[in-house]
Amino acid sequence: MDVAQAWLPRRMAAVEDRLRELAAGHGEPLRGEAAATLEAGGKRLRPLLVLLCAGGDAGRDAERAAVAIELVHMATLVHDDVLDQAPLRRGRPTVVARAGRSVATSVGDLLFARAFAELAAAADDGVRRVALLADAATALARGELAQRRDAFDVTITAERYLERCTLKTARLFECACQIGNAERDPELAAFGDQVGLAFQLLDDVLDVSGPPERTGKARGTDLLDGTVTLPFILARERDPGLATFDLRGLDEAGAAALCDRIAATGALDEVRADATDRVESAKHALAGSALDSDRRELLALVADGVVERYA
Amino acid sequence: MDVAQAWLPRRMAAVEDRLRELAAGHGEPLRGEAAATLEAGGKRLRPLLVLLCAGGDAGRDAERAAVAIELVHMATLVHDDVLDQAPLRRGRPTVVARAGRSVATSVGDLLFARAFAELAAAADDGVRRVALLADAATALARGELAQRRDAFDVTITAERYLERCTLKTARLFECACQIGNAERDPELAAFGDQVGLAFQLLDDVLDVSGPPERTGKARGTDLLDGTVTLPFILARERDPGLATFDLRGLDEAGAAALCDRIAATGALDEVRADATDRVESAKHALAGSALDSDRRELLALVADGVVERYA
Repeated sequence: MDVAQAWLPRRMAAVEDRLRELAAGHGEPLRGEAAATLEAGGKRLRPLLVLLCAGGDAGRDAERAAVAIELVHMATLVHDDVLDQAPLRRGRPTVVARAGRSVATSVGDLLFARAFAELAAAADDGVRRVALLADAATALARGELAQRRDAFDVTITAERYLERCTLKTARLFECACQIGNAERDPELAAFGDQVGLAFQLLDDVLDVSGPPERTGKARGTDLLDGTVTLPFILARERDPGLATFDLRGLDEAGAAALCDRIAATGALDEVRADATDRVESAKHALAGSALDSDRRELLALVADGVVERYA
Repeated sequence: MDVAQAWLPRRMAAVEDRLRELAAGHGEPLRGEAAATLEAGGKRLRPLLVLLCAGGDAGRDAERAAVAIELVHMATLVHDDVLDQAPLRRGRPTVVARAGRSVATSVGDLLFARAFAELAAAADDGVRRVALLADAATALARGELAQRRDAFDVTITAERYLERCTLKTARLFECACQIGNAERDPELAAFGDQVGLAFQLLDDVLDVSGPPERTGKARGTDLLDGTVTLPFILARERDPGLATFDLRGLDEAGAAALCDRIAATGALDEVRADATDRVESAKHALAGSALDSDRRELLALVADGVVERYA
């Protein structure tokens, strides 16, 4: 990384510090339970997008926005783990596994509230940022509801699946790319949307392909929850028996076998190719943006990184 | 009500319309599940406080703030019902009872996000309002966490109980009194705090006194959840056997018997008197405020109403 981009690691470190400060600053519950989530790291992909799209001249407000986005993301993870009864996240016990549903529900609410408090501390443009984040958070909740409504329906269309991905994942990526960008560059929204969809597609590939040592969860976890994703949908076109498959009776061994059956159709490669196309289209959108070439290059690297982490 | 206050019912109707609009405008999940919560009415005490403290000259922003506060309140109810596994709320099936934990968790998240979106649509002072609501929402979550941590501890102090009430209830009342008040009258915060505490104290009396036909839930519901409230704490001073009572073994009949045992000590009257004192102190705070006498009078009526609904 060029010396001109020295601001980026410095700001990412500031975001990390602030997340740690928040974890320590809200009494025992957050320290004890959410701290693990806050500090477990993750990829910090969304804060990175916020800072890059905001640029080197953006002030502390960009860091606040980056923190806020990550807090909403974490709140969602904590609540999703309650809904999925997930034992592990990033290879560590989830809040729900450590402290139960009640604590996890409240910890999610707390992280959510702190996200908006963080934005409200911004010096400028606070209301626009709150509107963007509130709309993205609404989309997340609607996406979760859509996924529950579709549960165990093996006949859902690819279109419906993509709509869910947009709500559950892409809207927050889009928000991350817009929230810190004072110029309100419209190409950044398109970039965020496509990167977000690619991210979700590859995440859904990983659920089928594993390996568990790498993903930190068993193969077919989504299928066990009744969540039908693009690998299954594409496999269904080549293996029509899947259209009447009953997911409700599935156990862990059955889920692994179903993953093998999906992989055997070649559907995973097709989804990977779709994701790669979206990353290309994201980079193409960047070419039309008003961003300087350094930032465009770094954003392209982030987009490529989304694909590479699954390579 | 004087013709000079004709703005109040008109604005309350506008708040009601907006809540209905939100229930209808977010697709099936909100229409199907949260609509019942949004439309079930309740007392709309918090929006009333927002509008009264904002005053007749306040514009649409006051209505938006009133809607936002009610949405956060509802989000909390929906999540609390998940945590308590409550079958009924205001005599109607809860979202969790109708649609399950998953949907209820997401519906709560959705209502929460819409609250902040509502504030972000305000023309003025949006960031200050977001900060107030985000802090109140943080307090709600911390209060819920504190209550879970204290669960089944029959030795907790009155001080600890009041701290929980402040977090769980009074902070949102305080926020309601401040969020629409452009003059930022500090006496209104004190008013909201005391009315909120009185409200919670009387709610906790009702859990012990019933009757179920009126409260819409069985007597001793809090005790069955392990939640020790002021009636129990004061009764413990007069009936020391309660200090070693094991709430974990309680069934519905046992809870009703425990309610009778608490009532027999006279603790309920003591809590009611405490609540009445707080309402008086709230009205006293108003006397020092810069509000015109009409609004002071209406706020005093609202405060009295909190006591009267339990009389």
